[in-house]
Amino acid sequence: MKLDYRNAQKNDLETLITLLSDDDLGRKREDTSKPINTSYLTAFEHIEQDPNNELVVIEFQQQAVSMLQLTFIPYLTHTGSWRCIIEGVRIHSDFRGKGIGEQMFLWAINRAKQRQCHLVQLTSDKQRPDAIRFYEKLSFIASHEGFKLVLK
Amino acid sequence: MKLDYRNAQKNDLETLITLLSDDDLGRKREDTSKPINTSYLTAFEHIEQDPNNELVVIEFQQQAVSMLQLTFIPYLTHTGSWRCIIEGVRIHSDFRGKGIGEQMFLWAINRAKQRQCHLVQLTSDKQRPDAIRFYEKLSFIASHEGFKLVLK
Repeated sequence: MKLDYRNAQKNDLETLITLLSDDDLGRKREDTSKPINTSYLTAFEHIEQDPNNELVVIEFQQQAVSMLQLTFIPYLTHTGSWRCIIEGVRIHSDFRGKGIGEQMFLWAINRAKQRQCHLVQLTSDKQRPDAIRFYEKLSFIASHEGFKLVLK
Repeated sequence: MKLDYRNAQKNDLETLITLLSDDDLGRKREDTSKPINTSYLTAFEHIEQDPNNELVVIEFQQQAVSMLQLTFIPYLTHTGSWRCIIEGVRIHSDFRGKGIGEQMFLWAINRAKQRQCHLVQLTSDKQRPDAIRFYEKLSFIASHEGFKLVLK
């Protein structure tokens, strides 16, 4: 499958919210009402204005089939280095199991190299064994615990 | 202990590099030569210029005793939300075991709240059981695997 990658635009938001809400966790925490919740618009503007954040839409034959967000972070550690975090990965339910995930991640890893990162990192819910196997297949190492603290 | 928090300045770099290199992992990957490696200066400038990154120096009686870096990331997920990542945490070896870690983290969590974050996250090496117990005590949940991929 020949995929195309581009930065998300404001008029993609409805499509992206649908993608985000199209899984068990997303359904509970996203708002698919129309017109779209302005909180999404505000978040989109913050992402768009930040040169270290890239919200990427992946298309197959002009249809959005998946999305992900890359964040590039400068650190002093490792003698001064950039790190890339991958988050917000979603694949349209009609397009799962077709190798899109692997293509997306190879693209993202390449993008991190272009941005001079020495490390790519992500966290994956322990209740998603398929996702964990997927990342291991891509040579990611589960060397760390991924801790979260939800703020009230 | 009464601790003071402030953003790092260029003339803190020598002290911060010493802190970063003062552990088993850091010793292998940091460069403590003088004058300081210009890569640290470049990284510092990137951090300083980015309003979503805060490199924090913690002082006790005007002495730098610890450091951490906060990164605030805007996401579409959770109906548009900010998340805070904590990284690069180090405590001076003369000041460990005095409760500084807990104070620093409570401060960082509060800072994340000020920045409207709904979530604080971090990864901790599985080979550091003491750190893992520390984060659990602070109510962090190890719900995720922390995957890393080192780029060549």
